[in-house]
Amino acid sequence: MLDPERILRLEDDRVVFLDQRRLPGEEVELECRSADEVAEAIRTLAVRGAPSIGIAAAYGYALAVRVGEDPERAARVLAGSRPTAVNLTWALGEVRGASDPAARARALHREEVERCRRMSDHAVPLFAHGTRALTHCNAGGLATAGHGSAVGALRAAWAAGLLERVLVDETRPLLQGSRLTAWELEQAGIPHAVIADSAAAHMMSRGEVDCVVTGADRIARNGDTANKIGTYSLAVLASHHELPLYVVAPTSTLDPSLESGAEIPIEERDGAEITGRFPALNPAFDVTPGGLISAIVTEEGVHRPPYVDSLPLPGGRGAA
Amino acid sequence: MLDPERILRLEDDRVVFLDQRRLPGEEVELECRSADEVAEAIRTLAVRGAPSIGIAAAYGYALAVRVGEDPERAARVLAGSRPTAVNLTWALGEVRGASDPAARARALHREEVERCRRMSDHAVPLFAHGTRALTHCNAGGLATAGHGSAVGALRAAWAAGLLERVLVDETRPLLQGSRLTAWELEQAGIPHAVIADSAAAHMMSRGEVDCVVTGADRIARNGDTANKIGTYSLAVLASHHELPLYVVAPTSTLDPSLESGAEIPIEERDGAEITGRFPALNPAFDVTPGGLISAIVTEEGVHRPPYVDSLPLPGGRGAA
Repeated sequence: MLDPERILRLEDDRVVFLDQRRLPGEEVELECRSADEVAEAIRTLAVRGAPSIGIAAAYGYALAVRVGEDPERAARVLAGSRPTAVNLTWALGEVRGASDPAARARALHREEVERCRRMSDHAVPLFAHGTRALTHCNAGGLATAGHGSAVGALRAAWAAGLLERVLVDETRPLLQGSRLTAWELEQAGIPHAVIADSAAAHMMSRGEVDCVVTGADRIARNGDTANKIGTYSLAVLASHHELPLYVVAPTSTLDPSLESGAEIPIEERDGAEITGRFPALNPAFDVTPGGLISAIVTEEGVHRPPYVDSLPLPGGRGAA
Repeated sequence: MLDPERILRLEDDRVVFLDQRRLPGEEVELECRSADEVAEAIRTLAVRGAPSIGIAAAYGYALAVRVGEDPERAARVLAGSRPTAVNLTWALGEVRGASDPAARARALHREEVERCRRMSDHAVPLFAHGTRALTHCNAGGLATAGHGSAVGALRAAWAAGLLERVLVDETRPLLQGSRLTAWELEQAGIPHAVIADSAAAHMMSRGEVDCVVTGADRIARNGDTANKIGTYSLAVLASHHELPLYVVAPTSTLDPSLESGAEIPIEERDGAEITGRFPALNPAFDVTPGGLISAIVTEEGVHRPPYVDSLPLPGGRGAA
């Protein structure tokens, strides 16, 4: 896995991030000295991935308290930095109730890494010998402050000798697949090849894909899953080709307050990310119906449909 | 439509192309003075789109004859410049048998434009009032040496007051949608928005798409259609959302020598088009089964499944 402290950490008077916008070309750190700066780092994707932005917000809140900012305002600014991932709200709730926010934020970070390890182990039996997997975006160590959710599962399957190769959707418009996931797989020594997002169906039809593995940004009670734009497309294509789709995500991604994915807000980002010159529409996420997901893997185990019965929804975390 | 002579033309001692690699930023011409240079222009996508490369090859052959090159070698070099489109082979066959290759090539160019006009008119009844269409790649005037096949149909539907808006897949890796189709739609005054290829499914699920319209690079007897990578993905997604997929292509795209799409060669392009740093796979085309295509429109009319009965396959053009 990646060094969790290298991805993000709280120091005396700053939160330090590995700037994910500069990867894979450069490995440079970004220092934030206020909640506003942390929120800006989240908004501009210097740090990204639902679990990582949860930890980032927790560190940002702890920093704000430490340097004497108004905690209520800090929490509001951080909570509003991105709309789709639920981990942001959840992590802020955890640190706001803590007597020592910094200690609680660091504990959340350790717990997130540990959750990813456990879900990766749970996922291993889903892989047969010689599996050729397809993944989308970056549900790796960068996105989860350490080990990775979907990529963590791929790491574990590789270590168990079950994985033959990973196809990586480049993941337009921001190329988290060809920039970040390929970088992580290269470091882990896992064979991989990047493809254009639109080539996934062709690869499936040619028998080059055995399963699709993704992370999640928010999961409703019925298993409907918001994740990077293109995940729903892969879900429909996998179903058409009778291939399983596995979502690997920590329980911090579950939102027990939502009956279904129809209630999940979808972030619309600037069309300039797609084309500088012509009009564009740029939804950053889509929602995959639980019915198209073969299994959801959390640190609690492998959950199968119907998810309304099988998901480990903690009573204390939502308005369910 | 675009000025056919602006897209490509034969002059005394050269073939002149509008360099499609430089659009939409710059409108510059590329001059080729030998069959080798024309083949290089085709290979490097200075000119692209199945009908346009057919005309380009015909002009390249006529130029070779005119300047005293070995005609057999010129035909071989031009035929080998790209593997997937059948128009290349067809157009070369037409000029090789002609007493005046230059005159025949210019006639082919005029005929191609006329075919596109006729198929566009045939396509109009497929559009209902207020249609929101989705298109992929560039099946426009640039690709067809004048009017456009899929984009031609959209022009005709717009002129008839039936079209509300076009969503344009950006079409990775070479962005023919966000560079070329958006440029053509802007010039035609047709409302449009570019989307990431992976967002098409999301847009369909939100009810933002009424039909998908694409061109074709090669069509087998049973209607299996090779087109830009991602077309097959759209076909599966359209089927899942119960939306029609229309393929608009001239009869020069039909290949009566092929029983099915399994026999169509798929060009694998350099992975560097996708990522400069990590391994990549870059198929440039995919094959959509005829069963997923609601109608194929040629200059002869609207053809419906089963295509083996309905396609206008001329006896003289293949080994059928």
